[in-house]
Amino acid sequence: MNLPRRIDAAQGRTPCDLIIQGVRFLDVFSCEWKTGDISIIDGVIVGLEPGLKAKQTVYAKGQWLAPGFIDAHVHVESSLLTPENFQDAVLKRGTTTAICDPHELANVLGVAGIEYFLKSAQNLSMDLWVMLSSCVPATHMETNGGGTITASQLAKIAHHPRALGLAEMMNVPGVLSSDADVIAKLTSFAGRPMDGHCPLVRGQQLSAYASAGITSCHESSQFDEAAEKLMKGISVWIREGSVAKDLDTLSPLLTLATSTSLGFCTDDRNPLDIANEGHIDHLIRGAIRNGVSPEVAYRAASWSVARHYGLASGPARRGAIAPGWAADLVLLSDAKTCDVDRVLKNGVWTTEISSTNAQAGEIKNTIRATVPEARDLEGPHGPVHVIGVQHGKIITTRSVQAHDSSGVARLSVLERYGHASKPANGYVMGFGANMDGAIASSVGHDSHNLIAVGSNTTDMRVALAALIECGGGFAVARGGKVLSRLELPFGGLMSEKPSRDLKKDLQSLKQASQSIGCELPEPFLQLAFLSLPVIPSLKLTDKGLVDVERFAIIDVRAS
Amino acid sequence: MNLPRRIDAAQGRTPCDLIIQGVRFLDVFSCEWKTGDISIIDGVIVGLEPGLKAKQTVYAKGQWLAPGFIDAHVHVESSLLTPENFQDAVLKRGTTTAICDPHELANVLGVAGIEYFLKSAQNLSMDLWVMLSSCVPATHMETNGGGTITASQLAKIAHHPRALGLAEMMNVPGVLSSDADVIAKLTSFAGRPMDGHCPLVRGQQLSAYASAGITSCHESSQFDEAAEKLMKGISVWIREGSVAKDLDTLSPLLTLATSTSLGFCTDDRNPLDIANEGHIDHLIRGAIRNGVSPEVAYRAASWSVARHYGLASGPARRGAIAPGWAADLVLLSDAKTCDVDRVLKNGVWTTEISSTNAQAGEIKNTIRATVPEARDLEGPHGPVHVIGVQHGKIITTRSVQAHDSSGVARLSVLERYGHASKPANGYVMGFGANMDGAIASSVGHDSHNLIAVGSNTTDMRVALAALIECGGGFAVARGGKVLSRLELPFGGLMSEKPSRDLKKDLQSLKQASQSIGCELPEPFLQLAFLSLPVIPSLKLTDKGLVDVERFAIIDVRAS
Repeated sequence: MNLPRRIDAAQGRTPCDLIIQGVRFLDVFSCEWKTGDISIIDGVIVGLEPGLKAKQTVYAKGQWLAPGFIDAHVHVESSLLTPENFQDAVLKRGTTTAICDPHELANVLGVAGIEYFLKSAQNLSMDLWVMLSSCVPATHMETNGGGTITASQLAKIAHHPRALGLAEMMNVPGVLSSDADVIAKLTSFAGRPMDGHCPLVRGQQLSAYASAGITSCHESSQFDEAAEKLMKGISVWIREGSVAKDLDTLSPLLTLATSTSLGFCTDDRNPLDIANEGHIDHLIRGAIRNGVSPEVAYRAASWSVARHYGLASGPARRGAIAPGWAADLVLLSDAKTCDVDRVLKNGVWTTEISSTNAQAGEIKNTIRATVPEARDLEGPHGPVHVIGVQHGKIITTRSVQAHDSSGVARLSVLERYGHASKPANGYVMGFGANMDGAIASSVGHDSHNLIAVGSNTTDMRVALAALIECGGGFAVARGGKVLSRLELPFGGLMSEKPSRDLKKDLQSLKQASQSIGCELPEPFLQLAFLSLPVIPSLKLTDKGLVDVERFAIIDVRAS
Repeated sequence: MNLPRRIDAAQGRTPCDLIIQGVRFLDVFSCEWKTGDISIIDGVIVGLEPGLKAKQTVYAKGQWLAPGFIDAHVHVESSLLTPENFQDAVLKRGTTTAICDPHELANVLGVAGIEYFLKSAQNLSMDLWVMLSSCVPATHMETNGGGTITASQLAKIAHHPRALGLAEMMNVPGVLSSDADVIAKLTSFAGRPMDGHCPLVRGQQLSAYASAGITSCHESSQFDEAAEKLMKGISVWIREGSVAKDLDTLSPLLTLATSTSLGFCTDDRNPLDIANEGHIDHLIRGAIRNGVSPEVAYRAASWSVARHYGLASGPARRGAIAPGWAADLVLLSDAKTCDVDRVLKNGVWTTEISSTNAQAGEIKNTIRATVPEARDLEGPHGPVHVIGVQHGKIITTRSVQAHDSSGVARLSVLERYGHASKPANGYVMGFGANMDGAIASSVGHDSHNLIAVGSNTTDMRVALAALIECGGGFAVARGGKVLSRLELPFGGLMSEKPSRDLKKDLQSLKQASQSIGCELPEPFLQLAFLSLPVIPSLKLTDKGLVDVERFAIIDVRAS
């Protein structure tokens, strides 16, 4: 930090690196557009008014300038991209900072999964901040690879320069009953940001949860729920992921009055949606379309989240366009439609930023299952409990049917962390009445065991074998052959490829799944939630069929 | 921090300590009044809704509840009260937190003066945070007791638990020219709050000052000046002290949009004004009278300043009424007139809080001057430069007159730190054409040498001797006798007495000064600024007559 150079540049004694001239820029402090010449040196803004000289000048009359967008809560793993490729995908969309929770990789690898993100974050151009995963494993009705991450393990990495706080505290019952491990985690992070995860929690329970020091939540799906959280000092991150979509419901809460306590997040957003719709820019666009004034939307997307996480103070201040603040800037051709022209990160045009995947080390080769025999994938016959899947919902329905009824498919989950377990087998409907073949995935929240759905055990075996061979991914099989496969060798969750290549592979997978008669538009996304035993009502983990309401494993056979 | 007790109390499993029932409370997050039952345990709020039980219940229907007020910038020494007595004076007015700069005592005692406040702050009930004085001495045209406080001295106390950041950076030319010591201070506090002091600084110079990392200023006296600071990321503290009064000019800047970047401060406020008009409550009242909406005024007075200084996060969050936040609360009979009924600090009624002065140690007996002879107080004769004083202004005028012209009084400054110096003698007008006698003070910004004004050297000698005898204070003399004296033995700046006793003494002093023909309503306040060589245009320090425009010492004789 060379203060004298900044001070000289601000007074015209030394030329700036860059001036963005005549631009309408957002003054987040008064929430108004102003016009000026934004002057930058060493990655930091040093002037707002005309009169300075620079090596490069961009004439931006008629354009708008907003502070870099911040994703307030994201699981990078859900993009299927490595942190480096995630950066490539979102920086150009205007997201210059993201607060991530490596919950998925932590379930696969334990603390090493968190450390992978901490280390990657140090080598990125974008600001990636890591919240330390608080709830690994999510439940004890599944087998993960990382085992249990304890409070003392988190304390050891809590002071890493890219560690920001405690990630989403999903164990709401544990907080409300003062579970010892939960209290130890909350106490050891006291005074630092602690993210919440409390869907539909209200009243005294919400007050208790807030009293424990939780200061944000991205899980509000109802207006009144979000308004109550806001009143209770819990910042509301409006989420629009690939599955969970809250933007339309929550947009009316975002006003001039509330704007400094609200922000945007993507949580889980897949690479196709990022490429086709956008990232935080997509949420800003949607909020404005829903009636939020542009100034308020851009303020929430930047300064508000930066302040919440302490990023608006400190040596590198982010979230505003003012002297002394980092030059994280989004130049817009149009503010109302959030039409991003180009993006500056620390004063560098993102078109000049490139990154290559860091060494993967131990995060490759995480699939340690042996290929099952087809007969091991055979579920019980007769009347069985069947999981019901509906397009776009992660909550499942339940019914009892004959195992071979029309529309009922086989579903198997195979533990993949080297315990030589046999698959757990059950039944599901909703993938399509005429499905002929199988699809399999190594992405299965939150333990990420192997999961396969299919019409027959042979194709399921082929699809699973394809994943075991390549270190994880997505596969579609029919007639004993693999039709399409996307490799996700990083933890069985992330591809090595950049976003544009991944897009093609995903489209090919989609076609293959349609060709075998799968009727769900997003079969892999839906498959990923079929083993998550914290979402109602019936799920299948490697330990068996989980009745989520009873929080117990039940027999697949309906007696 | 007993989280399980909070969690239990929030859910009604254990009784709360206190419930304030049926009160309209300020939700700072949405900037709206809500109605609820504010429930408290262990000094922390755990509920907002009805349904909990408590040991004590206060029925507050028809009353309002605001978060405790925060004074964003104050020199406690200007209240003439010790930190303990300052607490007694302001807590009951609703000020539960104050950000102080011990600049005066630091000039008297050096780092020991700052350490006195750090230590006192640890023993108070109110939150007193100490910004470390950045500019001691203010100039090199005066002799102080503390010598020069360097960047490395500040670094040694920077991590004290009550040290918050770097206090007002008055050396604007030093910042703009990258003075090495200034840069060292700014660099070593990078990332922590750094208060500014930049009256009338605008344009590129203001951008340079902001680029250096300064994040607040309490010295705006013009609307446009304050608006520019706000746009440049410098939080604006609206000041209403005993001398400098900016509230009427700056109130229009305080709106819903800007409210989270604005706050209130008193800077220098004397004990009579605190007792008669109020403290931050007085500013809130005035802002509302000036048209600021009450919600916005109370938000600025609490949450906004807490956020700026990082007090709204951390283990003890302050500035909002929400579960998990400290119970610093002001119960108001009327919100519009800021009519304070009672005040809670950390869940305790302030009527139950008492404090006694901590050990003074070395901060007593700081006057080490010997009593001068009357002849040593004799200034030059003939045509002389005369300082002109006007009621309520700290800027002085200048003229050349015969030394014995009507209305011209003698003015002497005596170095008091044991260097056995002779007094510097000059002339002043404005205290009254018919003054007969002398007044003297050990409060003289910023070096706090002894200063005396009078019609004759005998009475000046008597007044100065009275101060030397008692360790400092204010004195009025006539006919060779002391008419009234207020002792300020703590550093020659602060009384040992509580506010109510001090009030009587100050009234007696006022009467005495009127009885000797002094026409200024606040002679001691004005005297205190006559030796401050950073405020135009002509001042007298222990080193001689200072021409502030030329920043040089000049001869008293006009040639």
